[in-house]
Amino acid sequence: MLSKELYKELAELLGKENVLSEPEDLLNYAFDATAAMPKQTPDLLVTPRTTEQVAGVIKLARQHGVPIYPRGSGTNLCGATIPLERGIVLMTLEMNKIIEVDPENLTAWVEPGVIIQSLNDAAAEYGLMYPPDPGTVTTATMGGSVSMCSGGLRGLKYGVTKHYVIGMEVVLANGEVLKWGGKTVKNVTGYDLTALFTGGEGTLGIMTKLLVKLNPIPEARKTLLAVFDDLDKAGNTISAIIRGKIIPATMEIMDNTTIRTVKKFTNADLPEDAEAVILIEVDGYREAVEREAALAEEICGRSGAVAVIAAKTDEERDRLWLARRNALPALAQVKPTTVLEDATVPRSQITAMLRAIRAIAHKYDLPIGTFGHAGDGNLHPTILTDVRDKEEMERVHKAVDEIFAAAVKLGGTLSGEHGVGLGKARYLPLEFGPVGVEVLRWVKEAFDPHYLFNPGKVVLRG
Amino acid sequence: MLSKELYKELAELLGKENVLSEPEDLLNYAFDATAAMPKQTPDLLVTPRTTEQVAGVIKLARQHGVPIYPRGSGTNLCGATIPLERGIVLMTLEMNKIIEVDPENLTAWVEPGVIIQSLNDAAAEYGLMYPPDPGTVTTATMGGSVSMCSGGLRGLKYGVTKHYVIGMEVVLANGEVLKWGGKTVKNVTGYDLTALFTGGEGTLGIMTKLLVKLNPIPEARKTLLAVFDDLDKAGNTISAIIRGKIIPATMEIMDNTTIRTVKKFTNADLPEDAEAVILIEVDGYREAVEREAALAEEICGRSGAVAVIAAKTDEERDRLWLARRNALPALAQVKPTTVLEDATVPRSQITAMLRAIRAIAHKYDLPIGTFGHAGDGNLHPTILTDVRDKEEMERVHKAVDEIFAAAVKLGGTLSGEHGVGLGKARYLPLEFGPVGVEVLRWVKEAFDPHYLFNPGKVVLRG
Repeated sequence: MLSKELYKELAELLGKENVLSEPEDLLNYAFDATAAMPKQTPDLLVTPRTTEQVAGVIKLARQHGVPIYPRGSGTNLCGATIPLERGIVLMTLEMNKIIEVDPENLTAWVEPGVIIQSLNDAAAEYGLMYPPDPGTVTTATMGGSVSMCSGGLRGLKYGVTKHYVIGMEVVLANGEVLKWGGKTVKNVTGYDLTALFTGGEGTLGIMTKLLVKLNPIPEARKTLLAVFDDLDKAGNTISAIIRGKIIPATMEIMDNTTIRTVKKFTNADLPEDAEAVILIEVDGYREAVEREAALAEEICGRSGAVAVIAAKTDEERDRLWLARRNALPALAQVKPTTVLEDATVPRSQITAMLRAIRAIAHKYDLPIGTFGHAGDGNLHPTILTDVRDKEEMERVHKAVDEIFAAAVKLGGTLSGEHGVGLGKARYLPLEFGPVGVEVLRWVKEAFDPHYLFNPGKVVLRG
Repeated sequence: MLSKELYKELAELLGKENVLSEPEDLLNYAFDATAAMPKQTPDLLVTPRTTEQVAGVIKLARQHGVPIYPRGSGTNLCGATIPLERGIVLMTLEMNKIIEVDPENLTAWVEPGVIIQSLNDAAAEYGLMYPPDPGTVTTATMGGSVSMCSGGLRGLKYGVTKHYVIGMEVVLANGEVLKWGGKTVKNVTGYDLTALFTGGEGTLGIMTKLLVKLNPIPEARKTLLAVFDDLDKAGNTISAIIRGKIIPATMEIMDNTTIRTVKKFTNADLPEDAEAVILIEVDGYREAVEREAALAEEICGRSGAVAVIAAKTDEERDRLWLARRNALPALAQVKPTTVLEDATVPRSQITAMLRAIRAIAHKYDLPIGTFGHAGDGNLHPTILTDVRDKEEMERVHKAVDEIFAAAVKLGGTLSGEHGVGLGKARYLPLEFGPVGVEVLRWVKEAFDPHYLFNPGKVVLRG
């Protein structure tokens, strides 16, 4: 338990209403969107509103030797915000100002608690957008999204969060405020600390302001759905499209298990027997989009698609997207627990990875639906299970181990977009070996030698 | 002086022919492409061929307490490769294999000594390109370019080097080999160490293999030259083009001093009295390029250009580019010493920065020609002087100080693309304050506590 003294000091700093300590107020912060994780309520929840308040919280926590767990909306999928060692959850939701949208420099300054969609709404007034789209745009915060370097549906063409963060203000473990980067497109003054904090999962410092790049909204887009009766043909199509010099904004795949499940829970027009469907969306200038869509359709046909459906209207586009949007919600309805992974492989290995997942599902007798961002090799094998079934959960854990091993063996990575957090910290040696794990510790301890920030995540104490 | 023992051990490791110790062999490594820098010959030059040899050199240097200065072609512009504390220059030019071009995954693995153009030639066989174009593509190495995170002519649309490096092998100060990143488009497993080494200027480790992203070569491009009799109109045009949702591949500016000088030394068709010219190149799909070029031309006219010349053939394009390509060579012919800076401001501040530079030139009575990458705010004020003229050089140093201060005051940065190296290390507090400088030291010392790698650059000992 924390000392009464710390509570008093925090209440003085932030106002009583911004420091919660009653168990019933803290219950919701014992977990996040990640399934099958340990639960732990924090000792306190604080809701600062300014950089100075964040610095004050850090100084007090440090004096009292109490860890801080930064948290936005808690939509992450690797247990990154679970307050494993109790202490203080620092919630950023009240730091939610869009400070500036700058259409001359194509940038925006935001506070960490801004919801991604709010930034997009503000940018849209200037015909601009913030490209990273982690799927949770209406709930996830910019701070959480930058901390996790979230990826999502547009990674192939537009890159991921780290490609859009160009500056920030961070409060360090010593309570000092670091400002880094700026509005310039180019900047090589000093190490790229912005890149280090982006994806740092709140283990290196607490971000209090973020400067991001914006893009003009493309004027046109076109959506296709290609149906395959053979996994190899689907995989080859993905490669053929890239070889055809088309870089779609989105190129998503769903396997048969996912297709069947989606069909069961929605009225999506999907062929139940298809081995895979690929959803392709190209965007840009009208003429370019027409040409890319026609070429993509031709390549799908040539590569053995049994059908290709091209959306002619927005309504038709929405129908094509319906299936993909419902992939996870549908899978999540089958069983009480949905273990969603994001093992990622080079694009050329997608077919091999899909086969490996299928073999693992068979070996452990588990329903695994796989969907994901095929264009960037980022698959979501989704295990449908029940966390209360101990015997089955053991098989789930073994299956996850094998999925990770398969991804790394195919030249891939443990996490394409969800992050390490609590869920994958113990797997890091598999990908990095002892040298890499040691180097992560160098970085962590350079910034946070006392493991004040988000302990138990990414880098475990040596 | 180094011990004979170290020489013997290095000769044993690498072969005598790969360890140079005679003063006349070392003279060329006392300097790099940067003007007005201190010169210092190293004690030894070593030319390893393998990762193991690099690790061996590091272990020996560490045992003997001798610093290592990694070097490619030495084309950097901030004194980054000058062996300030003598020791060993580690030249990567013999590690020059293109290990793989992978058209399925749009990636290439290269050794650090590969010349950028060689990679482009190899990629072109698959219709691919490596977008970063620092202007020295035919001489600079990939290792040097990645170490410096070089920028260049295509930054606005295509980003800079860091946007293309997705994996690497690095030998650390303890002699261990770190492998990081991979071919996947998305990867959030652990901190982004690749981003830290990219632009790390050889102060954190020695890169021995690099994995980079490639892009399809755009099918078409179109080039325009717009002439202005007023700086404000030129600056406003740059902003108006971006506001018009056009992101050109290249958008370069030259001021009147540069125009006059280029005209004197080449037969470029430039209007001598123009206050500024802007060179615009758009690329992509044929139809999109046509539309963007037409719109850009219209915006230039509307924004007050006195003339806009559109290239209709490759030959006409080459003529438009001639002036820009000759900007630096022409300026360099005027006086013996060319001090080339790269202070960078937000795009919206380009006019203000051009005016500030002009005022500084006037104040210190120095010829300063300014050209650069206007689209990304990255200007190259170029001071024409003579390093032997002590009195003038004092004015040059004061002018440089004021140029940096002006850039930072306008929300810019000391270095857009040249790096910190030796030249700007002492200016860092101006941009970062004491907190930022201290954090850079945390990172440096986490990786290289004994300042073994490139000491005297970026981070100065505390």
